[in-house]
Amino acid sequence: MGRKAEIIAVGTELLLGQIVNTNAQFLAQQLADLGVNVFYQTVVGDNSDRLQSAIQIAQSRADIIVFTGGLGPTQDDLTRDAVAAFCGRSLVMHDSSLASIKSFFDTRGVVMVESNARQALMVEQADPLINDVGMAVGCAFKQDQTMFILLPGPPREMKPMFTNYAAPWIRSAIGESLPLFSTMLKFSGIGESNLEHQIIDLIDRQSEVSIAPYAKEGEVAIRLAVKASNMDEANRMMQPIVAEIHNRFPENLFSTLGETLEATVVRLLSEKKKTVAVAESITGGRIGDLITSIPGSSKVFLGGFMTYSNTMKNSVLNVPMTLLEGEHAPGAISKIVVETMAIEARKIVNSNYAIAICGNAGPDSAENKPVGLTFIAVADETGVILSRELQLHGNRDTIKQRAAKQALYALWTQIGMN
Amino acid sequence: MGRKAEIIAVGTELLLGQIVNTNAQFLAQQLADLGVNVFYQTVVGDNSDRLQSAIQIAQSRADIIVFTGGLGPTQDDLTRDAVAAFCGRSLVMHDSSLASIKSFFDTRGVVMVESNARQALMVEQADPLINDVGMAVGCAFKQDQTMFILLPGPPREMKPMFTNYAAPWIRSAIGESLPLFSTMLKFSGIGESNLEHQIIDLIDRQSEVSIAPYAKEGEVAIRLAVKASNMDEANRMMQPIVAEIHNRFPENLFSTLGETLEATVVRLLSEKKKTVAVAESITGGRIGDLITSIPGSSKVFLGGFMTYSNTMKNSVLNVPMTLLEGEHAPGAISKIVVETMAIEARKIVNSNYAIAICGNAGPDSAENKPVGLTFIAVADETGVILSRELQLHGNRDTIKQRAAKQALYALWTQIGMN
Repeated sequence: MGRKAEIIAVGTELLLGQIVNTNAQFLAQQLADLGVNVFYQTVVGDNSDRLQSAIQIAQSRADIIVFTGGLGPTQDDLTRDAVAAFCGRSLVMHDSSLASIKSFFDTRGVVMVESNARQALMVEQADPLINDVGMAVGCAFKQDQTMFILLPGPPREMKPMFTNYAAPWIRSAIGESLPLFSTMLKFSGIGESNLEHQIIDLIDRQSEVSIAPYAKEGEVAIRLAVKASNMDEANRMMQPIVAEIHNRFPENLFSTLGETLEATVVRLLSEKKKTVAVAESITGGRIGDLITSIPGSSKVFLGGFMTYSNTMKNSVLNVPMTLLEGEHAPGAISKIVVETMAIEARKIVNSNYAIAICGNAGPDSAENKPVGLTFIAVADETGVILSRELQLHGNRDTIKQRAAKQALYALWTQIGMN
Repeated sequence: MGRKAEIIAVGTELLLGQIVNTNAQFLAQQLADLGVNVFYQTVVGDNSDRLQSAIQIAQSRADIIVFTGGLGPTQDDLTRDAVAAFCGRSLVMHDSSLASIKSFFDTRGVVMVESNARQALMVEQADPLINDVGMAVGCAFKQDQTMFILLPGPPREMKPMFTNYAAPWIRSAIGESLPLFSTMLKFSGIGESNLEHQIIDLIDRQSEVSIAPYAKEGEVAIRLAVKASNMDEANRMMQPIVAEIHNRFPENLFSTLGETLEATVVRLLSEKKKTVAVAESITGGRIGDLITSIPGSSKVFLGGFMTYSNTMKNSVLNVPMTLLEGEHAPGAISKIVVETMAIEARKIVNSNYAIAICGNAGPDSAENKPVGLTFIAVADETGVILSRELQLHGNRDTIKQRAAKQALYALWTQIGMN
C-alpha cells in the first residue's frame, strides 16, 4: 500500500467557478507517477478558519498534503499563514527569493510595493521550492508523519516548481530512489479500442516498462513509463517496445516523442526540404491554422485557398462548373472535385505537395449528402497520389477538427513513405 | 447569510487526473445565481467508505450537498447506494425512468443488459430529477435540515438536469420565489479594466440588476443578471442599462445576447445580404476557421487565401515583389501590402468585403519587425475602408487568436456602421 495524498486548492475564484481547477488534474497525474495515491481533492476559499479546518481533515486521512494557491502578495493570500498557524510554526524570510523579487522590480525600473516581500516568506524549518518563472516561493516540510507541500496557484508557476523541486523532494522523503521517465507514442488513422486490442499482449506482459492507452479528445496515444536513473537509461529500456509497436503500426505511429501531427508534418517537410499548399472547403482554414501553429512552418507552408463557395472553386481553382452544379453533377462534395482542387492548388502555388478537402460539416445535409461525408486528396508533381472518402461523426466543430487531422494524416502517410 | 453548499464530485477518473472537474465550475456559478455560497468542493473516488466519510464531513459544514457522478450502471457507480446507506434509506425504482431506459434499447433493437436498470434507481421518498438526454435519473431530498442533490457525471447530462429540475427544486426548498435571468454583453476593441472604469458608476449604483465584468481568456464581457418572474420581465428590467451601456460604447458593444464576434459578423452579413472574403498571412487560416464555425456561414463567406509566403502574395494576390522584398521594400508586414491584399482578394473573389491581415506571430522577429506587430485592412467595392496597425502581445497561439479577433472586429465596425 503506497502513500496517500490529498490536494487542497485554495482560492475563492475556484469556489465561484471563475476558473477551472486544472492544477488538480496535473498534480493527480504527477503524484500517480510517484506511486502516491490521491484519495481526496478539496477546494476551499480564501478564508483562514475554513482552510485550517480543511487541513485538519486532510491530516486525518492523508500522508502528503499538496496545497496550490494563496502564496501571492495580497491579504487574501493566506495559505502559508494558515499552514504555519496550524503547525504551530512561524514564517521566515527566504532571502534569495526576496532578492530575486527585488531584482525583478529593479530591472523594470519600478518601485517594489512592500507587500510583494510576503511572497518570499516560507514556513520555518521548511525546504524552499524555487519559483523559476514567478515571484512566490514554495516550501516543503514534514511534521508528525505528514508532509506539507505548498505550491503557487498559477499553472505556469506551479508546474515547473512541482516537476523540478517538489517531485524530487517527495521522492526523497518517501525513499523512492529512481525517478519515472515517460514518453507518448502518437497514432493516427486507427481507433483507440482497435489499437489497444492489437497490443494487449504487450500491455499484459507486465515488464518494467508500463504501457497504457492515453485517451484525450481527438488523439490516440500510448504512454510508456519506466523508472530509471537517467533519461538515456530510460530510453534504452523503452526502445525494444517502441520498435515492436512501430513494427505493428508502421502506417499509424507518427511520433514517439508526443509531437502533434502538425508538428510532425512540419518537421518532416522541413527535413526533406519540401513545401505544401492547402485547398480547404469543409475545414474553412483549420488545416492552415494547425500547420501555422508550429514555429518555423513558414519554411514549408507556402499558403493555400479557402474555396468555400462553388464560384471560388471554379474561378480560383479552375474546377469546371459542370462538375459543381447541375442535376447530374457530382457536386462539390465528391472525389473528382477534391482531386481537381489538389492538382490545381499545387500548380498555382508551385509547392511540392497540396492537400485538398471537401465535405459537409453540418448541421444540415448539403447536396443531399450526409453530415460528415468528407473527401481528401493529396497531389504532388505527378498528380493525385492519395484519394480518400471518409464518413466522420460529431458536431460541426468536431467534424471540422477530425477532417483537418485526417487531411494532415493523409499527407503524413505520403511524406513518411517517400 | 445565505445557504452554504458543498459540491462532491465522485469518480476515480477525477482523482487520477484523467479528466478535469469542469462540473464544479458550472455548479459553483449556478449555485451563486441561486444565492447559495459554495464553501467547499470535494473530489472522492469510487469507494463507498471514503464517499460516506466525505458525506459526513460535508453534512457538518453545508446545508446543501450536490453530488455529481456515480449514477451509471456499473458496480463502480455507487453514489446513490452510499447516500442511501448514509441516510438510512433504501433505493426504489423510478418506473418512468426505467421505461425510458428500456425504450432506448428497444428502439435500437438491442437487448438491455440488466445492470442498466440500476440507472433508474433513486433514494426512497426523494423527488426524481429527470434526465432528458441520458439514462441515469437524478434525485433530490431533504433530511435533518440537509438537502441532498444527486446528479450524473457527464456534463451534457448534468447541466440540463441541474438547470431544468435541480435549480427549481433548490429554489423552492430555500423559499426563493423568483428565478435569476442573465445576459452577456460582449465587447471588442476595449480592454477589461478600461471598460470597468467607464461603467463603475453603473456597477456601484446597486440597482435590482446586477452588473459584473466577466473575465474569460480573450473576451471582454459584462454579465447582467436580475431576478424576475419571467424572461420578458427580466428583459424589461435590463433594457435601460443595456441602452445606457450601448450609448457609452457604440463602437465596442457588438452583442447583447452573448454571441461570439464571428457569430455576430455572420448574422449581420446575412441580414444585410453581403458577402466577405479573407486574405490571411499571420493568422494562417484562423479567421476563415472562426467564420466557418458558424452554421449558415456558407451564405456569406465565399472563401479566401492563406498567402503565407511572399511568392503567393505576389502570384495569387498580385502584390508587387518590389513591395515585398529588397533592402528598401516595406516588406510583407506593412500597411501598403495588407491594403493591396484586401483590394485584390475582394476583386478576385467578387465579394462585398475583404479582410486582409499580415504580421509576425513569433517566436522570432521577421523582417526586423517585432513579434506581435500586425496590420489589418478592410476593403469594399470603393477600395480600402479601414486600415489599422496593432502591437499584439502573447505567445504564438495567443497572437494568432487576438489577430483573428481584431480582424473580425475591424470588419464588424464597418458592417455595423453601414
